[in-house]
Amino acid sequence: MELAPDDVEWVTCDSPVNIALIKYWGKRDEKLILPLNSSVSVTLNQEEVWEQSMKNARLQSVISQIKRLCRKRKIDGDQPNEKLQWKLHICSENNFPTAAGLASSAAGYACLVYALSKLYGVEGDISKIARLGSGSACRSIHGGFVIWNKGDAEDGEDSSTEQIAPETHWPELRVLILVVSDQTKHTASTVGMQTSVETSDLLHQRLQGVPKRIERIKKAILRKDFHSFAEITMKDSNQLHAVCLDTYPPISYLTDTSHHIMQLVHAINQDNSSNMVAYSFDAGPNAFLFMQEKDVPTVLDILHYFYPNSDPHFIRGIHVPGKHDTHVDYTAFSDIKVIPRALKFIIHTKPGPGPSVQESDNGLLTKDGLPK
Amino acid sequence: MELAPDDVEWVTCDSPVNIALIKYWGKRDEKLILPLNSSVSVTLNQEEVWEQSMKNARLQSVISQIKRLCRKRKIDGDQPNEKLQWKLHICSENNFPTAAGLASSAAGYACLVYALSKLYGVEGDISKIARLGSGSACRSIHGGFVIWNKGDAEDGEDSSTEQIAPETHWPELRVLILVVSDQTKHTASTVGMQTSVETSDLLHQRLQGVPKRIERIKKAILRKDFHSFAEITMKDSNQLHAVCLDTYPPISYLTDTSHHIMQLVHAINQDNSSNMVAYSFDAGPNAFLFMQEKDVPTVLDILHYFYPNSDPHFIRGIHVPGKHDTHVDYTAFSDIKVIPRALKFIIHTKPGPGPSVQESDNGLLTKDGLPK
Repeated sequence: MELAPDDVEWVTCDSPVNIALIKYWGKRDEKLILPLNSSVSVTLNQEEVWEQSMKNARLQSVISQIKRLCRKRKIDGDQPNEKLQWKLHICSENNFPTAAGLASSAAGYACLVYALSKLYGVEGDISKIARLGSGSACRSIHGGFVIWNKGDAEDGEDSSTEQIAPETHWPELRVLILVVSDQTKHTASTVGMQTSVETSDLLHQRLQGVPKRIERIKKAILRKDFHSFAEITMKDSNQLHAVCLDTYPPISYLTDTSHHIMQLVHAINQDNSSNMVAYSFDAGPNAFLFMQEKDVPTVLDILHYFYPNSDPHFIRGIHVPGKHDTHVDYTAFSDIKVIPRALKFIIHTKPGPGPSVQESDNGLLTKDGLPK
Repeated sequence: MELAPDDVEWVTCDSPVNIALIKYWGKRDEKLILPLNSSVSVTLNQEEVWEQSMKNARLQSVISQIKRLCRKRKIDGDQPNEKLQWKLHICSENNFPTAAGLASSAAGYACLVYALSKLYGVEGDISKIARLGSGSACRSIHGGFVIWNKGDAEDGEDSSTEQIAPETHWPELRVLILVVSDQTKHTASTVGMQTSVETSDLLHQRLQGVPKRIERIKKAILRKDFHSFAEITMKDSNQLHAVCLDTYPPISYLTDTSHHIMQLVHAINQDNSSNMVAYSFDAGPNAFLFMQEKDVPTVLDILHYFYPNSDPHFIRGIHVPGKHDTHVDYTAFSDIKVIPRALKFIIHTKPGPGPSVQESDNGLLTKDGLPK
């Protein structure tokens, strides 16, 4: 959000994407965007990968809620905020490759709500307002490891997010985003989860199991127990996609390449006698691979081997010196086919902080309040 | 089974494959091969598509059980059966393309048990012996529509099959087996279902829902209610594959082509405002499409359109005159991509009878008891 100078004021913010470890799938209230289950995510470093985007569908709801909070402060004794009368010019930009299929609306709404809160001087739990824009946007309000508690109240007042641990808690954790070549036209997650709630018997079993799973992943995060972290993350991703397949008509986000990546990850872990890598898939075919910093060169070597690609920009993000000489023994992977160019590119990132205010020099609007 | 003449006796039989509508996945007893849930199948016509095959793993168990039944008859007052002392020569042949991925062991064991029962003059419920060879073999002992009741007894005595309706009950029903080109190396179903039982939370929810689903498909079969038949069949196939994905490590039998076929079938049904086609997938990527005879030309036209293939033997089995002029309006399918050669070939068949004794001229053994 940015407004040109003089009798205008502007704020420029950026906001990170987040990837769910325990997935959000299914609403108990469509209008208030209240989830059927709590979820856990990790916020990704926006220096490497972030995005801004906006859709108009739920925009008015978000703006009016922020203004309501601003008015409430005024009633509570503060000075009236004349900015409430001002006109808003909003400009948004997405610097994350849309091909990566990360929920752009989550980062976009987190960014908008954060920027509006700075503009109007609103404090308090803005994640509830971000949720009204896009459910999982509420998790992008925090950095590091985040839990979105589903809450039980009808009005959603207890459906809130909190940080499990900051991004500095587990500095060795790394994320490789594998952008696959066989992108398909997917069912929008909003529509998809609605159909699952209506038709999938298996969703109910999933909902019963999530609380225990959340306790286990919280423990794994706090103890930096990568092996358990990986197992729970992979199982939850698989279960989400199982529920999608049990939906009628079925929803399928995973492609042959996604399944190939899953098979490769399990082979790496089996060869290592302990989990070295974990995958997670959102509403699309791209893989989010988690691993520890020390294992990044090995995993990159294996990915180069199975998905050969001569693109000089194949690996993006955090730099890892090339030719790692990790001496992987590929006889352990003899069952797995090499598929040239199965991946478009890989983004290397790590857990990161929540939204932040940017220097105005980076603003997206001209002095006249129009997009540059 | 066949033995050469003179002081030998021989029997030559063939036995059909069956495709499950309500799938068998998970055993409650590994040794007795007792299932966790009842299942329903349709036996396919062996004039068009059948197979024989044999594995040695459970062979001895099947032979000794047949001999036990034969001895039991003798104790019950019949003449002693001197054949029990004879040596057995067994030869088996599979005329169904193995690429089609139909459980060859099911038809093979049904055939063996049937032939042995004829040789030794054993009567009664031989499906229980077939089950010891390969779980779903017990369903191939009957023609038409078959239920395998899981039973509750520890010794499996009440785990038995019965015919819901003969193949003549619904003469309009047709099956197209779509053999896809992207065959993958699959997890064997025996190992797969064992891992599911150990690791899939969602399997338990599935088991709770199966009895109701079986009641509904029995009704649909008896009423020849194709719309319901199709919906239940597709939902059960999807649920089975959802459970496979929820297994850890996950099992994936469906490929991109399988998913494309599923998407196409749902598009056809939506365009038709009622189910015209149903899919079902076993432990492999090939699709079994069910439809009524009147709709076969339309469905074949659509399949030719989306999976163009110039192979003159592309359609096998029951003959349908070419160039059907069904005037399909493809604007309803604008979302769906055309994929040349996604299918290897299509087999056109229909429900059929159980195993039968063949003329000896067709035997597989020479007079010396050796394979021809």
